[in-house]
Amino acid sequence: MDYAKQLINVSRQTLLNDLKTKVSSKRFEHILGVEQTALELAKKYQIDSQKASIASLLHDYAKEMDQGVMLPLAVKFWNHPLFETADSTILHGFAAATIAKEQFDVKDEDILEAVAYHTMGAKEMNPIAKVLYVADYIEPGRSFPGVDKARRIAYEDLDEAVLYKMKQTLTYLISKEYTIFPDTIEVYNEWVK
Amino acid sequence: MDYAKQLINVSRQTLLNDLKTKVSSKRFEHILGVEQTALELAKKYQIDSQKASIASLLHDYAKEMDQGVMLPLAVKFWNHPLFETADSTILHGFAAATIAKEQFDVKDEDILEAVAYHTMGAKEMNPIAKVLYVADYIEPGRSFPGVDKARRIAYEDLDEAVLYKMKQTLTYLISKEYTIFPDTIEVYNEWVK
Repeated sequence: MDYAKQLINVSRQTLLNDLKTKVSSKRFEHILGVEQTALELAKKYQIDSQKASIASLLHDYAKEMDQGVMLPLAVKFWNHPLFETADSTILHGFAAATIAKEQFDVKDEDILEAVAYHTMGAKEMNPIAKVLYVADYIEPGRSFPGVDKARRIAYEDLDEAVLYKMKQTLTYLISKEYTIFPDTIEVYNEWVK
Repeated sequence: MDYAKQLINVSRQTLLNDLKTKVSSKRFEHILGVEQTALELAKKYQIDSQKASIASLLHDYAKEMDQGVMLPLAVKFWNHPLFETADSTILHGFAAATIAKEQFDVKDEDILEAVAYHTMGAKEMNPIAKVLYVADYIEPGRSFPGVDKARRIAYEDLDEAVLYKMKQTLTYLISKEYTIFPDTIEVYNEWVK
């Protein structure tokens, strides 16, 4: 796939080569799985495939960075009062969005939002953001109770699939007694309205 | 049971007679069940039984009031910016706490907090509040998947029972796609720390 020059300042192959130096091989495989699924969903829902690919390849770009590097990058995208106490699960998407902007010259708001909010979700999500949020959950490497149902829903109704992931993720966090980032609940409340 | 005059300005019997005119017979039975369970838990954990009884009998006092009556009473106890949009599930405890103060001259902070926060829970809960929060969940009239486990935990570890109810309630709300009052998550986050 060729990327349009106005979307990003590197080719897909250059981005892949760079990505390989930033993440483990296991995560690299995950990222390719997300891209594959995102492209399938993009085709199904008639969504821009280049944007889906770019958002997919960038979404976990910052995932393995040290907290000390990740936090200022995340804050640069969104100066959220609670980011200081948030962990990398919440922060890495926002950090990757800053990298997308500054290093890869990505200006497309749909891509940037998709990357930034791919873990937390958002009250309003553009089509690329929905595709990435769902693809990250159901890519072929994922294996957990309910993933088959999630995959089925994803190809029936993209919004339903977003809500399904939100509900399942919150339920999982609660079952493990993990803390929940407050914005996640605001997002959930908006989606169940 | 006789109530000490400094705790409340009516006898238990007078309170029961009054309560019967305020709530349905089904809810009246529930309230008696909560009191019975709260007294058992109070005995087990060596907590003041009069306070446990008073908090139990007052906790749902406002539950069947019209929203137009309930909201200003709740706001009087806690002028919370989100109460305007909250439903009676959240509000009725705070309304009952105002009634406890103003109509029944209850000054004991443990009772008032127990009544106010019996649905939402609180980051820090006094022993009466814990007992009421748990008793409301496991009283003999309650029947739902997991209630037997909740009953067992309640007599093993009161804090564990509080957390169990919090987790189960959030999971239930999510499964039904009900909105979640944001403070509930702040409370949960504090309890899982």
